[in-house]
Amino acid sequence: MKAAVLSDHDKPLSIQEVDAPLPRDKEKLVVMHAGALNHRDVWIMKGQYPGIKFPSILGSDGSGICDGEEVIIQPGFNWGSDQNFQDLHYHILGLPRDGTFAQMMSVPSENIFPKPEHLSFFEAAALPLAGLTAYRSIFSKGGIDASSNVLISGIGGGVALFAMQFAIKAGARVYVTSSKQEKIDKAISMGALGGVLYNQEKWSKQMGELSKGIDLVIDGAGGPGFNELLKCCNPGAKMVVYGGTAGSMKVSPQLLFWKQIQINGSTMGSPMDFQNMLNFINLHQIVPVIDSVYKLTNINKAIERMASGQQFGKILINCSNL
Amino acid sequence: MKAAVLSDHDKPLSIQEVDAPLPRDKEKLVVMHAGALNHRDVWIMKGQYPGIKFPSILGSDGSGICDGEEVIIQPGFNWGSDQNFQDLHYHILGLPRDGTFAQMMSVPSENIFPKPEHLSFFEAAALPLAGLTAYRSIFSKGGIDASSNVLISGIGGGVALFAMQFAIKAGARVYVTSSKQEKIDKAISMGALGGVLYNQEKWSKQMGELSKGIDLVIDGAGGPGFNELLKCCNPGAKMVVYGGTAGSMKVSPQLLFWKQIQINGSTMGSPMDFQNMLNFINLHQIVPVIDSVYKLTNINKAIERMASGQQFGKILINCSNL
Repeated sequence: MKAAVLSDHDKPLSIQEVDAPLPRDKEKLVVMHAGALNHRDVWIMKGQYPGIKFPSILGSDGSGICDGEEVIIQPGFNWGSDQNFQDLHYHILGLPRDGTFAQMMSVPSENIFPKPEHLSFFEAAALPLAGLTAYRSIFSKGGIDASSNVLISGIGGGVALFAMQFAIKAGARVYVTSSKQEKIDKAISMGALGGVLYNQEKWSKQMGELSKGIDLVIDGAGGPGFNELLKCCNPGAKMVVYGGTAGSMKVSPQLLFWKQIQINGSTMGSPMDFQNMLNFINLHQIVPVIDSVYKLTNINKAIERMASGQQFGKILINCSNL
Repeated sequence: MKAAVLSDHDKPLSIQEVDAPLPRDKEKLVVMHAGALNHRDVWIMKGQYPGIKFPSILGSDGSGICDGEEVIIQPGFNWGSDQNFQDLHYHILGLPRDGTFAQMMSVPSENIFPKPEHLSFFEAAALPLAGLTAYRSIFSKGGIDASSNVLISGIGGGVALFAMQFAIKAGARVYVTSSKQEKIDKAISMGALGGVLYNQEKWSKQMGELSKGIDLVIDGAGGPGFNELLKCCNPGAKMVVYGGTAGSMKVSPQLLFWKQIQINGSTMGSPMDFQNMLNFINLHQIVPVIDSVYKLTNINKAIERMASGQQFGKILINCSNL
């Protein structure tokens, strides 16, 4: 079969003919239809991820056919018994275990779930990792409810868009930030009540006027700009951080303690989070936002697009039509 | 009566003869025996606090006699109806309302509580603001239990010492940090299991070996060193920040989300926190740690001691024997 193989640091993926996987005990073969990119894939290719090994097949998200059924794959393994945090042995598809950027995969049965019927293979492949991360951030950690004023930073990213869709369906009022007005406009067309350009100085003041104060922040950037998010918060607000693309966070302790704010780190999600996420997707017939679809043989162009930050929605990989 | 009056920025307090307070509706007169210093008093004298006005009588902690009974004063007003955060009109004794560094005070009846019987007037005056802040941090926000490994930074400060005493009585294993070995040794003599000098590079490694990982951090400093506290944490740990003497906090988003850590800002406490704190003090017959006692007429020497950071425990003011 063909697969996109990581064979060295800072090198493009190479499309190689590799042995088809042999299902081991409690595993099943999935004939892949679609995969999806995550920032994680870019970090790994840049060597900025722990435990990198060569050769590896990347890719954490996928949909396909298993035993004649349309399926998606839950990307996490060995979460452990505690809902609050993952076990030390937790890992996800696409390093160390071979991932979804291939024509076939062998996956433990317990990680195989029915594809939501209202979604295409591409839409369904957009779901697993980003949908899981967003679900845990918004619900399990953020405790969102219909009275929440929610601020989602960096709209256009996969997790941010799912977080927005989930929050809107939960009845909350959603505001966004982006560095591009075009992305804010798209978010508003999807139901956000407003947005602010975060590359403007003291943008938190504009957000304050727009929203009258934020109860829940969902952020995947961190960085020195994090303190502006803090300024947007109402007393007792919660903040959830699921990523750190902008590096070390700056936090004013005075704002933090005086407003009695809670900052929650959140990554991926438990199998229970995944099942709850799927239930929510099915209940509200949510359709993931797709930015673009690339053939597996063009995967390096897809990765360039992700690294450029131009995307609005998930970048998909067609694994069946090469 | 005599009182210690703040009459200008960056000036020592002046001991002045002022009018005795006249109790208004629902207020009572308290003849003061003792007051206690807080960092807040130093910040106010340096002009680094919002809403400073002249003249003001400072002091948030006090004990005395009211209607023939021995009492202490709950220093917070207008907390509001939500346990999670204080109302916008919340304030505490000692600016804007005149404080405890005086021979007499007029206080709303609902803020007057029986002095714990096992405590002297001085010990009892050490209690209110620091005990309240520590109680809310450890219990209401930190959710401590007997299985917790707790790290309390900057041991020697009033809140840090109460947090340590409360945590030990809650059955937890307590570790501390300080910049002075002498303070660590004193904490160990009080029941802490160990401590590390935080002015050594990468001290979190030592703390890791000592404690095998921390479940709850209580910190009043923030600053760039906050990230070392994060490194000490177990997955799912909670951190509580009740102060910011070291300025802007540095936080690694990767550590935060991968370990699923929760950072809680906490300040002061609700009337319910105060009552619960008093109950806990009485139940466990906890005696506050007193660093030193100064006469009201020598209050500027007391303030110098607090500003120097030499103290281990609360710095008390004798308001009755001038």
